[in-house]
Amino acid sequence: MSLIKQILQGDQLTLARIITQVENDTAEGHRALDELFPYTGRAHIIGITGPSGAGKSTLVNSLVKLLRERTKETRIGVIAVDPTSPFTGGALLGDRVRMRDISNDEQVFVRSMATRGALGGLTRTVPAVVQVMDAAGYDPILVETVGAGQAEVEIASLAHTTLVVEAPGLGDDVQAIKAGILEIADILVVNKADWLGADGVVQILRSMLELGYSQKLNGSSSLEPANWIPPIIPTVATEEKGIQELIDAIVKHKLFIRKNGDWLKRDRKRLETWLEQLFENELRSHWRNASAHENYANIINLMVSRKISPYLAVKKLIKD
Amino acid sequence: MSLIKQILQGDQLTLARIITQVENDTAEGHRALDELFPYTGRAHIIGITGPSGAGKSTLVNSLVKLLRERTKETRIGVIAVDPTSPFTGGALLGDRVRMRDISNDEQVFVRSMATRGALGGLTRTVPAVVQVMDAAGYDPILVETVGAGQAEVEIASLAHTTLVVEAPGLGDDVQAIKAGILEIADILVVNKADWLGADGVVQILRSMLELGYSQKLNGSSSLEPANWIPPIIPTVATEEKGIQELIDAIVKHKLFIRKNGDWLKRDRKRLETWLEQLFENELRSHWRNASAHENYANIINLMVSRKISPYLAVKKLIKD
Repeated sequence: MSLIKQILQGDQLTLARIITQVENDTAEGHRALDELFPYTGRAHIIGITGPSGAGKSTLVNSLVKLLRERTKETRIGVIAVDPTSPFTGGALLGDRVRMRDISNDEQVFVRSMATRGALGGLTRTVPAVVQVMDAAGYDPILVETVGAGQAEVEIASLAHTTLVVEAPGLGDDVQAIKAGILEIADILVVNKADWLGADGVVQILRSMLELGYSQKLNGSSSLEPANWIPPIIPTVATEEKGIQELIDAIVKHKLFIRKNGDWLKRDRKRLETWLEQLFENELRSHWRNASAHENYANIINLMVSRKISPYLAVKKLIKD
Repeated sequence: MSLIKQILQGDQLTLARIITQVENDTAEGHRALDELFPYTGRAHIIGITGPSGAGKSTLVNSLVKLLRERTKETRIGVIAVDPTSPFTGGALLGDRVRMRDISNDEQVFVRSMATRGALGGLTRTVPAVVQVMDAAGYDPILVETVGAGQAEVEIASLAHTTLVVEAPGLGDDVQAIKAGILEIADILVVNKADWLGADGVVQILRSMLELGYSQKLNGSSSLEPANWIPPIIPTVATEEKGIQELIDAIVKHKLFIRKNGDWLKRDRKRLETWLEQLFENELRSHWRNASAHENYANIINLMVSRKISPYLAVKKLIKD
């Protein structure tokens, strides 16, 4: 039986092997993606981001557990991306502990990825891994990453629905909540809602939302009732509180973007971003080839001795 | 008379026009650089970086004034780079005020550049403008920029000698001095040395230096007396205090790197970085061409309908 057939039939071992090939950007990984691609585009991709310590992994654990209880036949994919670590492969120990309820569930496929130092970071490998899981019939696919640097924006461009998770007690709460977060959030989650200060976090988010939306309304000529306004959902992930409400909000958002055309728009945008990334990688490998070429040192020497200008040098490099 | 001849003879108006062409990346700018390139590689390029409010422009003003008094025949180039502003061209008003002593000097050429939003930022245009001034016989060339983000590292990779300017009263002094600064500094300047807290800044820098150098010495098997240890120079730029000592340190560093071969190494490194940047720009313009191509929308549509995979799409784009 071909690898592709095995994956389409739900063979997790083969899936894991192919994902490793995809992550390592091998020829076999490319071939697999080429073959799997026609089977993609069905899964609901849910991004989960937020600061370190907000309890994202625990939230994912509760979320998946409840989703599985509701629909027994559902297969769920989880990708935990760590943009701060260069160690990759399998499930990280910390994730295994926090996701213990779901990591033994045969219908749930959990994959940890580390992207630090990876060329193109999140944007290169994660979309590819999502596609493989999508083809394998996992739906929804949850992509969790810590909100560090570019990572959260990249997650949002990848997902249909983006959850931003905040929590009290993460330092100065007003400062910690970044202004840009509202632009990417479809749903705001305040986890650890039983902690001191949780109400304050909810209030800050609400004021930020109101400010943001009144500005948007002032900016637009007519009121747009068709706009999605991100709900704020308090949760206590460790006790599975608020998870049902969160699932309801996710389903509501899915229906909303299905109806208004955003689902397709986001799919197209994701594919465009991915294409651009692949194009850049392709070109960059041309540079590596060029600079490894015997001519390269030669050309640099000619520049240092001022015999050819940088512009001519580039033309020469590209021609060679 | 050709433009190049006019520039080589010191025509400032022509120089300004060519620099504008170079900044705007026009064909005329490229042609001029190609022709001027053989005349470059002579100027001593001095980078000046540090936090906003440290008094860098005033320091440059005093530095150039004293240099001109010492050697009447010297022509000095000044490039003030503002990586936070998108407004470019001529000398910015603030620079004109702070550099009032030198901006009326015929032998001094001051150019302000804004690089925010510019493709490739500092690395694309500044080296090119430096080359033009270099060919025009300006030596030294001072490149001043606020130490924001990547800017200071880029300045250091451009310069033969990098001055890092600190000052008291810029918020929490210990926090404000970034750890990475020592890796790029050839000379440390504590400006506003008459202010309260200046001694503290000097002490912090000294401890950081000692820590850094003892680590380096522990790491290497033998003592390297050939190492340059950055001097710490207190100045009061507004009163021209300490400027003579600063000039002495700059000249000393120049002789040092001339002797140990770093001068040539830095020149080669700069040209390599520039070449890579030009190569990337060239490739990126290929992407713009590709995505503007009539086929592009077509290819995206084929991807969205899952008829061709992203990898095949890239191959198709590159072929077209």
